[in-house]
Amino acid sequence: MTKKKEIKLGVFLAGTGHHVASWRHPEAPADASMNLDYFKELAQTAERGKLDMLFLADSLSIDGKSHPNVLTRFEPFTLLSALAQVTAHIGLTATASTTYSEPFHIARQFASLDHLSNGRAGWNVVTSSIESTALNFSGEEHLEHRLRYQRAEEFVEVVKGLWDSWEEDAFIRDKESGEFFDKEKMHELNHKGTYFSVRGPLNVSRSPQGRPVIIQAGSSGDGKALAAKTAEVIFTAQNHMESAREFYQSIKEQAVSFGRDPEKIAIMPGIFPIIGDTEEEAKTKYEELQDLIIPSVGLNILQNYLGGIDLSSYPLDGPLPELDAEASNAVKSRFKLVQDMAKRDNMTIRELYKYVAGSRGHHIFVGTPEQLADKMEEWVENQACDGFNIMPPLLPEGLNLFVDKVIPILQDRGVFRKEYEGTTLRKHFGLEKPANRYAE
Amino acid sequence: MTKKKEIKLGVFLAGTGHHVASWRHPEAPADASMNLDYFKELAQTAERGKLDMLFLADSLSIDGKSHPNVLTRFEPFTLLSALAQVTAHIGLTATASTTYSEPFHIARQFASLDHLSNGRAGWNVVTSSIESTALNFSGEEHLEHRLRYQRAEEFVEVVKGLWDSWEEDAFIRDKESGEFFDKEKMHELNHKGTYFSVRGPLNVSRSPQGRPVIIQAGSSGDGKALAAKTAEVIFTAQNHMESAREFYQSIKEQAVSFGRDPEKIAIMPGIFPIIGDTEEEAKTKYEELQDLIIPSVGLNILQNYLGGIDLSSYPLDGPLPELDAEASNAVKSRFKLVQDMAKRDNMTIRELYKYVAGSRGHHIFVGTPEQLADKMEEWVENQACDGFNIMPPLLPEGLNLFVDKVIPILQDRGVFRKEYEGTTLRKHFGLEKPANRYAE
Repeated sequence: MTKKKEIKLGVFLAGTGHHVASWRHPEAPADASMNLDYFKELAQTAERGKLDMLFLADSLSIDGKSHPNVLTRFEPFTLLSALAQVTAHIGLTATASTTYSEPFHIARQFASLDHLSNGRAGWNVVTSSIESTALNFSGEEHLEHRLRYQRAEEFVEVVKGLWDSWEEDAFIRDKESGEFFDKEKMHELNHKGTYFSVRGPLNVSRSPQGRPVIIQAGSSGDGKALAAKTAEVIFTAQNHMESAREFYQSIKEQAVSFGRDPEKIAIMPGIFPIIGDTEEEAKTKYEELQDLIIPSVGLNILQNYLGGIDLSSYPLDGPLPELDAEASNAVKSRFKLVQDMAKRDNMTIRELYKYVAGSRGHHIFVGTPEQLADKMEEWVENQACDGFNIMPPLLPEGLNLFVDKVIPILQDRGVFRKEYEGTTLRKHFGLEKPANRYAE
Repeated sequence: MTKKKEIKLGVFLAGTGHHVASWRHPEAPADASMNLDYFKELAQTAERGKLDMLFLADSLSIDGKSHPNVLTRFEPFTLLSALAQVTAHIGLTATASTTYSEPFHIARQFASLDHLSNGRAGWNVVTSSIESTALNFSGEEHLEHRLRYQRAEEFVEVVKGLWDSWEEDAFIRDKESGEFFDKEKMHELNHKGTYFSVRGPLNVSRSPQGRPVIIQAGSSGDGKALAAKTAEVIFTAQNHMESAREFYQSIKEQAVSFGRDPEKIAIMPGIFPIIGDTEEEAKTKYEELQDLIIPSVGLNILQNYLGGIDLSSYPLDGPLPELDAEASNAVKSRFKLVQDMAKRDNMTIRELYKYVAGSRGHHIFVGTPEQLADKMEEWVENQACDGFNIMPPLLPEGLNLFVDKVIPILQDRGVFRKEYEGTTLRKHFGLEKPANRYAE
């Protein structure tokens, strides 16, 4: 009997949970998004569950229609540096945009976090897709989709280069001779490209993981190519096993074409699990949350999701009109996902906003712990994914249930670790520590 | 009898200490600059001493001649967020440059740190004076001194504006009505200036201090004006009480001319104390450290300090030649300080590099705890300063000695707190929480 493949698991932390109306739930701590004690508790729960990592999204603007959970929140580097002090194993991953920052700053902050967490940092590389963000950064116009991705690719190359500034054994610190470091082992990058020119070296020593883990979530053509080229972990929205299998195969094939080992890329769709002891209980929980969505809020979220398209002139209980994806600056993969869903399942605008507003297009699961474990195993066995990024609709409840009820089932079935085997995020994912490009 | 004025005290943490050769000392942990456990211990020692704050410098480049302590180090926001978790009272202040960052990022990171530390964050506003930094940020040319300060002034205005994005009571979080926040209490800044255009609002709620404390260290004409206009704490290099008194008076007068209360500005010169149980012991300790300076390293530091001026053609044991301050892009106040010192005390290049390399131009004190307490009291009584930023030549030893031997004397004399009266940095400095500009 061959050993079963181990499932990779992350938890995507967001205020009171991923359901848009979660903050209205009677049990929700409504101030969650800026409550440090609350985040400490979540991180410690996730670590008790032996999860591979926790994950934070980010944004650099507020557009007035923002989800209450993300309206105000901690800046990710500062929050993860704090959480690193109350955890010892779980990976700490943050989203940081390549559109409005500088590679030197980002390289430095992740390297520093990697040191402060003893090798648990991961970077979710994104481009900023919200046009209003430019207005916070003295920008007149928002960078067009393809250019954002070109910039992102060069940005990642520069950051990786800066992470190699110092070889592992660069620091001699010979008190007698006065030689602090070996000049041959400090490297200037001297990058000169289209978007950036960066000399280096970085002023942070090589970090415990060599390089923080690179995560990508782009699912458009450009996004997928960047992910296949650079990502070690890929987040994606996949609602059906068949399309997830296609996505999985396509990414792994592209990775091979870039000369990469497809085993070294973990594909992790988001999953939005409503867990009950019985299916009935789970359904009731879901309906309770859905009933908390205020129609105007739900519609705004759907419109936002589609890149700001105005749907106010269409009846809420009628079908989604034909929309032109090319005319929108939205995340293309999301656009397509909503359109496909609307057609396939004949969904009304109201049904769509309820679906999107609740789970933001991610896979909704409603059922028992046993059923959730079954689904996870099935998807991983069928090469639809390597694991999941759990997006609890309601926090802390959803994470507590997952850790207390689903994890033990997966452990009993031999598809999830009972103890951490290592203390770095790379180790959890079975990724080698990359060699420094300059080392002999 | 009038109550004696309380002395303000910070500790400037830097690797193995502020003496350039401190890392070579037998007791120095040579890997200090990137050792988190070590920084935790320092922070906890400083808090045991009831100090107002700890302070971190920063840089955004390495130029090959950098002091070993600052060659590689933690990024300040990440380090302070970690230290916030192992301390509860001491202020946590970091240097962040206005030259190569964006106000939105800096506003956000300090606001987040202020939340994560329950109101202990302070920002040392600087401009980047090292030309090579531009090379790490796709910049062709380094911004000229005056323009850097213009940019800095606008930068600070934008950051303060962003910190007012949300009024204190903006978040209603009424689960019943579904109203999460009061739209009237969220404010767009809509700043459009010479260097920046920033819409806002910031995506962090108003922080516990309302605004993190603003620190300034510029001592040139431009720097002093910016400090008098915006700073709540001022760091400065002052070697003689008379010139310190002049500086003090000039800043406080300028502050008044800007309509500010001079009592709400704490002027804190750096002091570099070598403490021994006897004067003899202190002198021996100092000589031990000075003897560890390697001549080529010392000369490089002096040259750097003077803005990269080449002194290699002059005899080490001869006088400093006449130099043109205007031709250098160095920090002007430092330039003048070295020139004045060279003339007044007839110092040779070797003596100058030993002085500068050791203490980097800050006030060197060599003596007993009693003598140090006397000097501190004398300066504060004579309105030469409001307190000091302690720059221990050797760490952790210098901080331990200060906390264990000097603090108790100051406490006995009634010029330093025995317990913290509050938990925010503003409270330590007797500064009010500023009102939000939009609040009625």
